[in-house]
Amino acid sequence: MKFIKTPVKGMCDMLPGDMRLREHVLGMIKKTYGSYGFMQIETPVMEHIENLTSKQGGDNEKLIFKVMKRGADLQRALQKGDGELADNGLRYDLTVPLARYYANNKEQLPAPFKALQIGSVWRADNPQKGRFRQFTQCDIDILGDESNLAEIELISATASMLTRIFAEINVTDFTIHINDRQLLGAVALSAGFTQEQVGSVLISLDKFDKIGLDGIEKELLQNGYDAAVVENYLRVYRGVRPGISIAEFCAGIDRARLPQEAADNLAQIIECVRPMLSRGVKLVFDPTLVRGMGYYTGPIFEVTMDGYGFSIAGGGRYDRMIGRFSGQDVCASGFSIGFERIVTILKDHMQGGYRRKEEAVAYLIGGKVPQARRMQVLADAARLREAGAIATVLPMNKNIRHQIERLEAEGYNRFEKVFE
Amino acid sequence: MKFIKTPVKGMCDMLPGDMRLREHVLGMIKKTYGSYGFMQIETPVMEHIENLTSKQGGDNEKLIFKVMKRGADLQRALQKGDGELADNGLRYDLTVPLARYYANNKEQLPAPFKALQIGSVWRADNPQKGRFRQFTQCDIDILGDESNLAEIELISATASMLTRIFAEINVTDFTIHINDRQLLGAVALSAGFTQEQVGSVLISLDKFDKIGLDGIEKELLQNGYDAAVVENYLRVYRGVRPGISIAEFCAGIDRARLPQEAADNLAQIIECVRPMLSRGVKLVFDPTLVRGMGYYTGPIFEVTMDGYGFSIAGGGRYDRMIGRFSGQDVCASGFSIGFERIVTILKDHMQGGYRRKEEAVAYLIGGKVPQARRMQVLADAARLREAGAIATVLPMNKNIRHQIERLEAEGYNRFEKVFE
Repeated sequence: MKFIKTPVKGMCDMLPGDMRLREHVLGMIKKTYGSYGFMQIETPVMEHIENLTSKQGGDNEKLIFKVMKRGADLQRALQKGDGELADNGLRYDLTVPLARYYANNKEQLPAPFKALQIGSVWRADNPQKGRFRQFTQCDIDILGDESNLAEIELISATASMLTRIFAEINVTDFTIHINDRQLLGAVALSAGFTQEQVGSVLISLDKFDKIGLDGIEKELLQNGYDAAVVENYLRVYRGVRPGISIAEFCAGIDRARLPQEAADNLAQIIECVRPMLSRGVKLVFDPTLVRGMGYYTGPIFEVTMDGYGFSIAGGGRYDRMIGRFSGQDVCASGFSIGFERIVTILKDHMQGGYRRKEEAVAYLIGGKVPQARRMQVLADAARLREAGAIATVLPMNKNIRHQIERLEAEGYNRFEKVFE
Repeated sequence: MKFIKTPVKGMCDMLPGDMRLREHVLGMIKKTYGSYGFMQIETPVMEHIENLTSKQGGDNEKLIFKVMKRGADLQRALQKGDGELADNGLRYDLTVPLARYYANNKEQLPAPFKALQIGSVWRADNPQKGRFRQFTQCDIDILGDESNLAEIELISATASMLTRIFAEINVTDFTIHINDRQLLGAVALSAGFTQEQVGSVLISLDKFDKIGLDGIEKELLQNGYDAAVVENYLRVYRGVRPGISIAEFCAGIDRARLPQEAADNLAQIIECVRPMLSRGVKLVFDPTLVRGMGYYTGPIFEVTMDGYGFSIAGGGRYDRMIGRFSGQDVCASGFSIGFERIVTILKDHMQGGYRRKEEAVAYLIGGKVPQARRMQVLADAARLREAGAIATVLPMNKNIRHQIERLEAEGYNRFEKVFE
């Protein structure tokens, strides 16, 4: 019999210390979003293969773990030769399942609906350091709210959640960047790009952090765009100073092209959210923020922390996406929390790992301890548990020093040796 | 584009009310077992197909959802014609993954190791009422403890957990049945069955609750066993009165066959656990308890509740199973909690579903409310959250009565309508 000890390639066994940290973070996520009225939901990890391959998932559709048909269905598909062998697949994100869930259960849910989803997703990516084939995603979405209350609640809830979590490692500073897809489009159009060119231009602008405006200029010219149009375009961004206001930035856009409503909307969101932020948390208008996915339609936002080259959360309004999927138009805005990234940052800052604060007592019982004494110890342990402590009753090992070391590593801080 | 609204066959979308109940129960499970020193661990949902089909999983191996190979591996398998098309499968229980996990991570874990696993498992069973193709399992296991402290901790922790959970529905009574595989074997051998026949005899005895001793007699005779041996065997069980002690029962067994150590061990477990049980919880020696799986080697136990035709938890000692799997012998004892069954019982008793006790306030904001007033409401909501309440800020719907009804169904108990 062949037995393989290691987990499937690209996937992890979670040790107790990992789990304590993850559960602690999940607890704070659920509690904070819960207090804002987000309701936890869950969908099966498997989705119909048709839904997963409907071309809304972008490159992720190439990375699906497919689940094979069974029994007669499988035989039929195999005989056909070119038949689809899979009927299901593991979800690669929580957005496709949310669209299906909402279409399926809408009648039973409040409107607007504030959803919290926490769950594993799977991608048959090439495993790399810090990139796994099974990982946890955490999404909040507000469906059916076309007002900017959606963005206000999404951003202030997320800021509150991150503030709580990072307080544990004495990190109080992070930055929420906000922009609007309509503004991004208006700048490009007002510079002289056509509507069809906007998508490609934004792909270049998205590289601002990596290649700067000079790099973007080079790339746009290489892509064959008119030098005068490119210059018009970049002039707007060259004028951007840190802390620029929306009004100042909009002054650089052709008035006829300016989506005044979107600009006012963005200003209103910022005005509402800022007073609710803790010290150290910045909410800044960032005219170069693009967010990769093509489905965003309005405000977009992203959270960064100094010293980390990745964002720790990102999202935006995607009013037409669920409708394209399910055939029922629903406005929507969401924030995806980089759970694994947050855990990584916490681990970086916690030498020796995350430790719970409870008293944790291990009773180590020698081999010849009589029954009456054992019963006494069990009663002592029960009393400690009743009082909120952790208590474990274990047989004493021959190598007691090693046993205690291991238990200390798992957070035990008191040891009672019980001999005959 | 074909979009399917319903979940994959036999699987469920969890509505917010379901999730509140499930999360509440999970919280109590984690807290109680945590206080007994059980450490939460997690394994990937996918396992190597070789591990899942190693003949330790019984009938479950026929129900595996297989995950297809990808890319060149898949092409090669398809060309071969008779090649295995799957390299992974979804786990059908948490025991196979635990055996692999322990073999893989033993060096980093305390010994004995008290594990708590909570996770989904998948079986391509025929869906029936209350039986799903994805469901949650919850297992506690103690690996590396050959003493009966393992059983004492497993049983008293589970009793404590169930007591807490059922207190919510004012149910204080349930029964823990305990027996020992060695005793079961001794009765059969002392009646005159051979060692080879024991397994088949126990399969009949396992039907005691359904068909009674008369039914068992009929079945044993139909199976061709000697009438005198069958009569010898059943005489022992005919003498069983409710509340029979281990000593009384053992008096009916051939002294030479009696596994005195196992009987003493069982008596010791009962003596240690009983004082720790809450009023209403019974721990009884049940000489007809068999537990289906063949891998048990010592004490076995099961929890039942009056009025339910199924057990809500069950387990036992399985000292040789992990070794057969991983090649490294490890003694082990475990308890599997019927999470879905517990949730079903709670739902049965909770008219109108599970409700949290916090204050939950919904601010419903009319369309023309000015920005300053909105900011005031947001600040009010923030203060409520700070004080531990749930507060949500939503645009007011045209059909406000319907909106409030839906929110009430989700536990909101205060509504603030904000007009211009």
